[in-house]
Amino acid sequence: METSEQHRPPAMSAIIRLADKRDVPHIHRLIHQMAVFERLTHLFSATESSLAATLFPSSSPPPPFRSFTVLILELSPSPSPDLNPSFSPIVREVDLKSPISDPDAEAFASAGGGDGVVVGFVLCFPNYSSFLAKPGLYIEDIFVREPYRRRGLGRMLLSAVA
Amino acid sequence: METSEQHRPPAMSAIIRLADKRDVPHIHRLIHQMAVFERLTHLFSATESSLAATLFPSSSPPPPFRSFTVLILELSPSPSPDLNPSFSPIVREVDLKSPISDPDAEAFASAGGGDGVVVGFVLCFPNYSSFLAKPGLYIEDIFVREPYRRRGLGRMLLSAVA
Repeated sequence: METSEQHRPPAMSAIIRLADKRDVPHIHRLIHQMAVFERLTHLFSATESSLAATLFPSSSPPPPFRSFTVLILELSPSPSPDLNPSFSPIVREVDLKSPISDPDAEAFASAGGGDGVVVGFVLCFPNYSSFLAKPGLYIEDIFVREPYRRRGLGRMLLSAVA
Repeated sequence: METSEQHRPPAMSAIIRLADKRDVPHIHRLIHQMAVFERLTHLFSATESSLAATLFPSSSPPPPFRSFTVLILELSPSPSPDLNPSFSPIVREVDLKSPISDPDAEAFASAGGGDGVVVGFVLCFPNYSSFLAKPGLYIEDIFVREPYRRRGLGRMLLSAVA
């Protein structure tokens, strides 16, 4: 038998919520994993403090989707309510089909407490077509950690911003 | 002798200031002139009301350079102070070298009153490199009206955001 740290049960809630400053260590690790995946670690110089200063400036943060926006995807057997007033989290039951062995589960334990584990993120920011007078969103990063791929979670992240 | 409407004296102040809702008719005309210049009028569908609704939403506008930002370039013999607290206008004396004949001077009279004439604009919005944890600005549009070109005004607009 595996422990529950290694194998998560197949029926879980997937939660997409607005990231905040407490998520910075996870965001930093996720971006680094993405750089490894893209074989671009030589271009990676972000630090936890530079991410915190630029993504979550303390003075007058703009509402989501009006400036840089990071959404965090978590899996949890029992999602706790997120009380951020500016973005209602998206919660969906997901059938993972098979148990998932996640050696990094502890490192990616949700910053918000509870029993969630961070499995991916999306980072986007607004763009604008002046000819159409139409705001849009540019997706800079979309990433799901390796053990959680091919289960529709990337699609769920994409549809949260598309 | 030409009238002062047609010929502006060569010594003027160039002012770059944050656009506001009153500038929408000028912004609309400027974007249309840009579409004509680029031979892309078939892609142009912005209206004054769609620009106003998207560029200047009435609820909680974010500070300049944190979302879509439009800066207006005006020429004026006697610039009036701009009291917008979130962006100090850039004012510079410019030597236009030769008088400028501007058939559209009346249509582009400054929305802020005074004797300024709108001669160009820049529209930009933030972008972000996650690998570098570095915010940037994407310049969607930069435009100087035809009679005012080749006098360093485009460079002045560029340096206001670069």
